[in-house]
Amino acid sequence: MNLPNRCLVTFEPSGRQVHLARGEMVIRAAREAGLHINSSCGGTGVCGKCRVEILAGNVDGGVSEKIPEADSRQGIRQACTAVVQSDVTIRLLDSSSLKSGQLGTEVPRRNRASIHQYDITELQEEGLFIPPVEKFYLELPRPDHSDHQADAGRIIRSMKEQYGERHIHIGLSVLRNVRRTLREDDFRITATIARPVNKDARARMMHVQAGDWSNRNYGLAIDIGTTTVYGQLIDKLTGDVISEGGSYNKQLSYGEDVISRMIYAEKPTGLDLMHELVCESINTIIKDLLRDQPISIDEITSVTLAGNTAMTHLFLELEPHNIRRSPYVPVSTFFPPLRANDIGLCLSEHAMALLFPAVSSYVGGDIVAGVMGSGMYRTSKLTLFIDIGTNAEMVIGNRDWLACAACSAGPAFEGGGIVNGMRAAAGAIEDFSIDPFTLEPMILTIGSKAPLGICGSGLLIIIASLFECGVIDQSGRFNQDLDTWRIREGRSGHEFVLVEAADTAIKRDIVLTEVDIDNFIRAKGAIYAGIRTLLGEVGLTVNDLEQVILAGGFGSYIDLDSAITVGLLPDMEPEKILYVGNGSLLGCRMSELSNHIRKDVVSTIMRMTSFELSEVPSYKDMYVGSLFLPHTSASLFPSVFKRRAAFFASKNG
Amino acid sequence: MNLPNRCLVTFEPSGRQVHLARGEMVIRAAREAGLHINSSCGGTGVCGKCRVEILAGNVDGGVSEKIPEADSRQGIRQACTAVVQSDVTIRLLDSSSLKSGQLGTEVPRRNRASIHQYDITELQEEGLFIPPVEKFYLELPRPDHSDHQADAGRIIRSMKEQYGERHIHIGLSVLRNVRRTLREDDFRITATIARPVNKDARARMMHVQAGDWSNRNYGLAIDIGTTTVYGQLIDKLTGDVISEGGSYNKQLSYGEDVISRMIYAEKPTGLDLMHELVCESINTIIKDLLRDQPISIDEITSVTLAGNTAMTHLFLELEPHNIRRSPYVPVSTFFPPLRANDIGLCLSEHAMALLFPAVSSYVGGDIVAGVMGSGMYRTSKLTLFIDIGTNAEMVIGNRDWLACAACSAGPAFEGGGIVNGMRAAAGAIEDFSIDPFTLEPMILTIGSKAPLGICGSGLLIIIASLFECGVIDQSGRFNQDLDTWRIREGRSGHEFVLVEAADTAIKRDIVLTEVDIDNFIRAKGAIYAGIRTLLGEVGLTVNDLEQVILAGGFGSYIDLDSAITVGLLPDMEPEKILYVGNGSLLGCRMSELSNHIRKDVVSTIMRMTSFELSEVPSYKDMYVGSLFLPHTSASLFPSVFKRRAAFFASKNG
Repeated sequence: MNLPNRCLVTFEPSGRQVHLARGEMVIRAAREAGLHINSSCGGTGVCGKCRVEILAGNVDGGVSEKIPEADSRQGIRQACTAVVQSDVTIRLLDSSSLKSGQLGTEVPRRNRASIHQYDITELQEEGLFIPPVEKFYLELPRPDHSDHQADAGRIIRSMKEQYGERHIHIGLSVLRNVRRTLREDDFRITATIARPVNKDARARMMHVQAGDWSNRNYGLAIDIGTTTVYGQLIDKLTGDVISEGGSYNKQLSYGEDVISRMIYAEKPTGLDLMHELVCESINTIIKDLLRDQPISIDEITSVTLAGNTAMTHLFLELEPHNIRRSPYVPVSTFFPPLRANDIGLCLSEHAMALLFPAVSSYVGGDIVAGVMGSGMYRTSKLTLFIDIGTNAEMVIGNRDWLACAACSAGPAFEGGGIVNGMRAAAGAIEDFSIDPFTLEPMILTIGSKAPLGICGSGLLIIIASLFECGVIDQSGRFNQDLDTWRIREGRSGHEFVLVEAADTAIKRDIVLTEVDIDNFIRAKGAIYAGIRTLLGEVGLTVNDLEQVILAGGFGSYIDLDSAITVGLLPDMEPEKILYVGNGSLLGCRMSELSNHIRKDVVSTIMRMTSFELSEVPSYKDMYVGSLFLPHTSASLFPSVFKRRAAFFASKNG
Repeated sequence: MNLPNRCLVTFEPSGRQVHLARGEMVIRAAREAGLHINSSCGGTGVCGKCRVEILAGNVDGGVSEKIPEADSRQGIRQACTAVVQSDVTIRLLDSSSLKSGQLGTEVPRRNRASIHQYDITELQEEGLFIPPVEKFYLELPRPDHSDHQADAGRIIRSMKEQYGERHIHIGLSVLRNVRRTLREDDFRITATIARPVNKDARARMMHVQAGDWSNRNYGLAIDIGTTTVYGQLIDKLTGDVISEGGSYNKQLSYGEDVISRMIYAEKPTGLDLMHELVCESINTIIKDLLRDQPISIDEITSVTLAGNTAMTHLFLELEPHNIRRSPYVPVSTFFPPLRANDIGLCLSEHAMALLFPAVSSYVGGDIVAGVMGSGMYRTSKLTLFIDIGTNAEMVIGNRDWLACAACSAGPAFEGGGIVNGMRAAAGAIEDFSIDPFTLEPMILTIGSKAPLGICGSGLLIIIASLFECGVIDQSGRFNQDLDTWRIREGRSGHEFVLVEAADTAIKRDIVLTEVDIDNFIRAKGAIYAGIRTLLGEVGLTVNDLEQVILAGGFGSYIDLDSAITVGLLPDMEPEKILYVGNGSLLGCRMSELSNHIRKDVVSTIMRMTSFELSEVPSYKDMYVGSLFLPHTSASLFPSVFKRRAAFFASKNG
């Protein structure tokens, strides 16, 4: 039997249709169609609430002891375990009270930011596809009685004659191999050249090989994250990513956040250890990236790395002491090009390591890499670039000017400080909707596992959903007037029961408390206030923004409508919000492919004004105004206030 | 008794007078006065030939069993052991047959080239006294809430604000110390900066120290000679040489000449060993130079080195294989600036090592250093710069153009290939004159020791003297018509007995053979032919030369008249012949004091045309013409031919 790869799912009575991959769960099909189905157990089939009726077509599974055999014979299935196998028609049962078409009762479509990447073809067309470390094949004239030029001078002369490359510096280690290499294949060699940033400076000959190896030139992009180190192996001739991967930063054993690691680094030998651990992490990834690839480690001629300022300091064994102490001064924001193996990377002697410069102690090379990799630094549009994590780093501006700041959001977006918060891992509630009448939730978890807790992006959607239907008010308090057992007095104030103990993996109720909401509001408020303050410092308002670029792990999962609803992101059309993924890694990759990025980054940094938000007087006012959902000022979030007013009118009317 | 420091010595019957230091030997006083006294034993009092009569004044010593007591009472003394203690009048006895005033019978005054050095004051006045590695004292503004600049950027900013220095590169090792150092003495630091050659390139910060150390900046100049390594410790603030010294190149145990060492270097680990030995030699000197000086090794911020191309290759561990194989191609003629301790020198991590570039395999950095240090590269006079050793390297030109070549002279000038030849050491005959009638010699040895042999400069004077008085003819044969036992048939042809066995330290006759003369003529002929050929290649003749600069050990001892008489140097006024001593060392010192030398050397090398004499067709003819004393062509040596003609006229008339 030939099964279709894409299936059409039609839901009755609304008639809504979605196309999706065969093998998808019915509940996710409903979610995709914007339809709510009560469900609490995260797709494990335990709660038995998500019953639907299959009217036509093939569905596998969805049968359990929760469904009486008679019902089962009638086509009743559990939506969370039933798998679509063909075009199907499915009826939502009355037990799911969501009425299609009724205002505010649909599950909104999740608007994730569209992915934006620098275009390699564009680079090529603009003549900017010039990797910082390139290979050149040379056929040198043999020395004879009329040409006594030294071996090294001979190479330099040919580089000029054959490629128009001037000013090449040859270091001692290469000089030591030159004579032999030249004579190994009759004066045919491949020279590996590292370009300078400054056009008047000298290029550096990193390596000479006998014969033609110019078609084998690989690079690495490495994002040194506080939690995870990500890497990509890049073919520098095509721009292709050959392999990619990540691994935990082994420094994690000495503290989850940068501050605790900086403190550890101040102990005797602590800095050495931090350096070794991050090197080990990077070296593990390098090994992984090369596994099963027909590429030798010698063929990697460069690696570009980016990390926040603290991570970069620890990696280079620069003392981070004053990064965390007022007035927050790093050792350096620019880092010299280095030999990769001089700093502990398991690469060959001729591989260059290039590090993204930072702006300040709290706006690091990872953000700069994002600004470069996303192309923000050369756009004419007034753009907000933002990387949201424990700290939110933000850059505002365009090709003419840039202003940046960092603010501490706290760990709420990573599930920290939330009673049932957790990292984005299997079992974390990642999507949520609520029946505005019954207040019955629809819970979707990562990996369709029994719910374990709430991850950051889930928290955002939960709070937005509860706020949209009036369960939470503007100040983040639960509406005590609602007739529901789900709102109750908990150990630390009021709380909302998202999942009952029986349906969870933790066998305790999963709740959202007012304290959780407070923490979340403070986090989003800090960020939004930061955006407004930074804009204010350059005489602009959020209405002037033409584009938002999200970077970082959180950015990829963030539901844009929810983010606007709660007042985390400015109220604007979701199409104007782009996502670049790991901006740091993207910047590293682009820099591996175009030396122009390395040139431009210097001037970009130079025109990047850094603001210390805590020192801007207006920040505090902005912050206080942001401690509401979405904000005290309705004029800043017109679409949210309008939609909410319409909902209440519809509900009450 | 108060003894005078300078004494007036009057010789009778000629009435000649000389002033000299008290304590000088009478025989040297006579030599100084241009008077011949027969003597063979080198001043040991053995031969007893050098008797003189003291007419007035005080003389110590000069008494031995060779002088009968009666004679002694009359004031007869041996000139070679008698020491002048006051103004004295001395009569030369009849046994010394030299008649004052008779043409050709005086001992000519020795015209050594006058010493020429680059003038430090001149450098200062021209604003060129800018060492390549300097120290700068900086008082940095402390970081505060309005100034978060990173430590490294803060230093760079102050370098610009306080000293107008831009574009400074800070490497990782310095970055690692910056934070601590800045805070050790309240943001007062001394930065050690290595300047680039190219003005657009970046200066390099080598070191930071807490406090003000800007008045402590020392450098080293090192000449890596094949035989001897010389060094000078230099105060880079004043230009003074604080100490200097030399020591044998420890590579000597593996061969006296560069070729045998290059051959050794081709063996497995041979190059390593050659490198280690020369480093040991240099390190020994560095230790010696610092002994008893109140200077720490950390205060040496740079070392400039020069050597011939082979020595430089061995020092840097560059394979010398093709230097000695046609077409004679070195690995490189330019050498990158290095960290001194990266190449095995026992200096601190922040000391720079700068190496003089070479022109070719046979015109090395030592010659280039001489051309720079002597100022030849910026003179308007048409100059011949020549360093005479086993190889003679020569450069012709002025500030507008330069042509260079090397020719193999063989070891004759260093006493090699000469039956009784030896190095210039105690006991070597260094000066000589002959009584043209009796053919009795006057022998002076280094250190007034019993004669051991003949050194290069002595050989030159002996051959010139014998030629001047007709003992040797133009083709280098002994005149068999002379009535003297001193010319005899030896084991390998005719020879001239300089010292009889009894008067020597070797207890064998010290002789000069016709084979020795042949070897000498071939050596001087190769050099003179080289000079003419090189001049010819640029359309000039020896008559166009306005100045000769001699460099190297041989040059300091060379008697200019003798050198012209035998046809080694062109026939010109001795005042036009200058001596720069160790040109290589001089160049290194000047380069330690003025970065302009480093800048200029690049352009100087670029306009230095190198000629391979063996490949110039006219060289062979020039060489054949030079195989005579002084030359086949009388027109090239008018003064020599005129003087010799006058001598014979006087003798025969």
